[in-house]
Amino acid sequence: MHPLWVSLALLAPWAQAQPVDTLWTARYVVTMDSQRRLIEQGAIAVKDGAIVAAGPATELRGRYTPKQRLDRPDAILIPGLINAHTHAAMSLLRGVADDLALQEWLEKFIFPAEARNLNAEFVRWGTRLAALEMMLGGVTTFADMYYFEDAVAEETKAAGMRGVLGQTVIQFPVADHKTPESALAATERFMARFANDPLIVPAVAPHAVYTNSDATLRKARQLANRFKMPLLIHLSETRRENDDLKAKRGMTPTHLLDLLGVLEGRTLGAHGVWLDDADIAILKQRGTGLAHCPSSNMKLASGAAPLAKILGAGIAMGLGTDGPAGSNNDFNLFEEMDLAAKLQKVTRNDPRALPAEEALAMATIHGARALGLENRIGSLEAGKRADIAAVSLRGAHAAPLFNVYSQLVYALKASDVTDVMVEGRLIVRSGASLALDAAAIQRKAAEYGNTVRNSLR
Amino acid sequence: MHPLWVSLALLAPWAQAQPVDTLWTARYVVTMDSQRRLIEQGAIAVKDGAIVAAGPATELRGRYTPKQRLDRPDAILIPGLINAHTHAAMSLLRGVADDLALQEWLEKFIFPAEARNLNAEFVRWGTRLAALEMMLGGVTTFADMYYFEDAVAEETKAAGMRGVLGQTVIQFPVADHKTPESALAATERFMARFANDPLIVPAVAPHAVYTNSDATLRKARQLANRFKMPLLIHLSETRRENDDLKAKRGMTPTHLLDLLGVLEGRTLGAHGVWLDDADIAILKQRGTGLAHCPSSNMKLASGAAPLAKILGAGIAMGLGTDGPAGSNNDFNLFEEMDLAAKLQKVTRNDPRALPAEEALAMATIHGARALGLENRIGSLEAGKRADIAAVSLRGAHAAPLFNVYSQLVYALKASDVTDVMVEGRLIVRSGASLALDAAAIQRKAAEYGNTVRNSLR
Repeated sequence: MHPLWVSLALLAPWAQAQPVDTLWTARYVVTMDSQRRLIEQGAIAVKDGAIVAAGPATELRGRYTPKQRLDRPDAILIPGLINAHTHAAMSLLRGVADDLALQEWLEKFIFPAEARNLNAEFVRWGTRLAALEMMLGGVTTFADMYYFEDAVAEETKAAGMRGVLGQTVIQFPVADHKTPESALAATERFMARFANDPLIVPAVAPHAVYTNSDATLRKARQLANRFKMPLLIHLSETRRENDDLKAKRGMTPTHLLDLLGVLEGRTLGAHGVWLDDADIAILKQRGTGLAHCPSSNMKLASGAAPLAKILGAGIAMGLGTDGPAGSNNDFNLFEEMDLAAKLQKVTRNDPRALPAEEALAMATIHGARALGLENRIGSLEAGKRADIAAVSLRGAHAAPLFNVYSQLVYALKASDVTDVMVEGRLIVRSGASLALDAAAIQRKAAEYGNTVRNSLR
Repeated sequence: MHPLWVSLALLAPWAQAQPVDTLWTARYVVTMDSQRRLIEQGAIAVKDGAIVAAGPATELRGRYTPKQRLDRPDAILIPGLINAHTHAAMSLLRGVADDLALQEWLEKFIFPAEARNLNAEFVRWGTRLAALEMMLGGVTTFADMYYFEDAVAEETKAAGMRGVLGQTVIQFPVADHKTPESALAATERFMARFANDPLIVPAVAPHAVYTNSDATLRKARQLANRFKMPLLIHLSETRRENDDLKAKRGMTPTHLLDLLGVLEGRTLGAHGVWLDDADIAILKQRGTGLAHCPSSNMKLASGAAPLAKILGAGIAMGLGTDGPAGSNNDFNLFEEMDLAAKLQKVTRNDPRALPAEEALAMATIHGARALGLENRIGSLEAGKRADIAAVSLRGAHAAPLFNVYSQLVYALKASDVTDVMVEGRLIVRSGASLALDAAAIQRKAAEYGNTVRNSLR
């Protein structure tokens, strides 16, 4: 188009405007694009599930004719938040056992609770509860590692959310599969089923190096690569995980995965608390993504991940809540951003460590890169899928406003999210889920709570 | 009364019931009394500003005839939270300067912002904004250290909140007083004015040992003791504060205060990050209270206070938010409880450190003890003033419920608070302040935000 014509189109209301589905306007649009554009009195035009433009509201109002207008003059629009590591269905075990030593927590509570209660229906309701909480808090995408992942995928789609959903593969018998071979075969069917889904990225999730044989880890990688899908794995979460492997085989988990070829293909490692410099060099070379889980790492006393080194190396590290049954108690990315920044500051003895803007980057564009979805989500710019959250500035804790990033990370809360869009479709409006029946989910969660409690007696 | 008569009164609806002002009922009443009674289907009867009884709802319904009933079947009633250390009026500087080194933060932002903007009117609006945010988040009492403390007291009363309000005394000229003598004289008038107030405890707040002469510290203590009021002071917040005093005078701040006789009388020390074993022994002996501020200590990289030793010694340590202009960005006691527990776990490498119930104790009864108000507030039991908060269990993040303490500390949020009572008077109902004009405060906060921003250009 001729430059003159563009100018005319901007200036002249009688010039032909382009039809779009939705035009958002807001006090601020935080793009998290490569220039980190922060647009005051900004707007976003959405068509066919994608962002057509993000720019000044005055400009976009002239350029587009929307079917639907969403004017949020007291809100900030941010890229939908990305929960890069969780176990969604464990929502039904929220707080079942806190403040315990790891072995007691696992052996007296988590393993028995799962052994006695876990089935596809449990996972279905647990995913609904988690999806409800996540969307109300501005999360649009989550990376899951659990059992019965077909049920997780169905419920994620029904909720209107985006998921990178990893079917667990583990060496011992679990609720959905008695052998890793059975789990791998099911994962193959799962991948075939959701291979072309607009919302679901099916993945394979070998639990960790210490719970899988080398052969299983290799097969998981091969399966993922056959479908060009990601592999999700817990990686150097605890000191013990590292120490045990060093004692047995004289190497770190990252070193072992690399030797086995498991990092050759899209991989997301969760936690990475105990990565050393050699591990970081390997992960950088292989393009492996990571998920930082500050709540979980603090609550389980796992430690503080070396974020300066990891992010400094250019490794994509997102933020995750981990599961809510001991590691955490909620799916709140606002709290993870706040904690990520504060944990780095106190452990590195430097108040400048992980500034607010970088914490927000971890919850958005870095998370997208870690999951291999940076061409689709993680920022608000033309060409990306329309995953957007509106965060209200009306709270008493939201005034005054000096710095938008600082406000988002240190002052605003998940409860300030008012509207959420995924793939161009509004899934939360005025703080309520449009697709999910919140009252029914609450009732069912209470029922499951009683069942689980009785099962542990 | 004869036991038989008590039984009859409970059983017989025609027996004469005692008139009270308010009867609360709720799914749980968390008393935080000496037996830590947790009452399912509980109730609280309130008369003339005091709690008459806390017990099972079935029992209290028969025993009392209330003028007002507050039935909250989906909520937990907790003692109103106590913010044991803050600078309320700094709300208007919320997030003015984050992620900076301490000197840059103070010299480029806080000192100039205060020098150019601070006056009684600023403090008045700042206190209103802080009071609004605190009450909406379940805080009923706060301990303040700032300037123009008369204005803070007037606004605290107008908001219906309880405050232990410390007029700052400092060696250099500040907005309200050019000399410590002037500040001490004003504090004397302030103490006389509010000596018998039901809501306000006037206090003297010498800023710290490194910003006051020995003589000023002694005079502050004498003044406090003359009125039987507390002395509030920053104590061993940073390593540098300790190192500097050791280099200059060969002793810790606590040791110096003790030598000067400053700890002989009700004292609250804020932070206490760098207390050593000898300091802890002194504070225990003197009955000094402390305020732990985990958000601030993490964000400013001050360190992690030795809670195991402090609480283990039986010292009363409450929880504080500190000010929201860099140290923190909000007045959220739910986040401080969560952070206090998680910071202890990760720094002590023990997931059992500071369990949820103890974190809640710090925000309630321990805070009350630290402020010398344990006979009036901090627990829900007969004889205490009626400072009560209702926390809703309706959120998606609030289900299911396995452990009430765990849910309160790790899952529930300030935004779940629905109703708040202070001194028997409801100040928040259905999430809205009854005394404060939230919209007017928001507008004024935005105006002050612009003024402060322009003043820093």
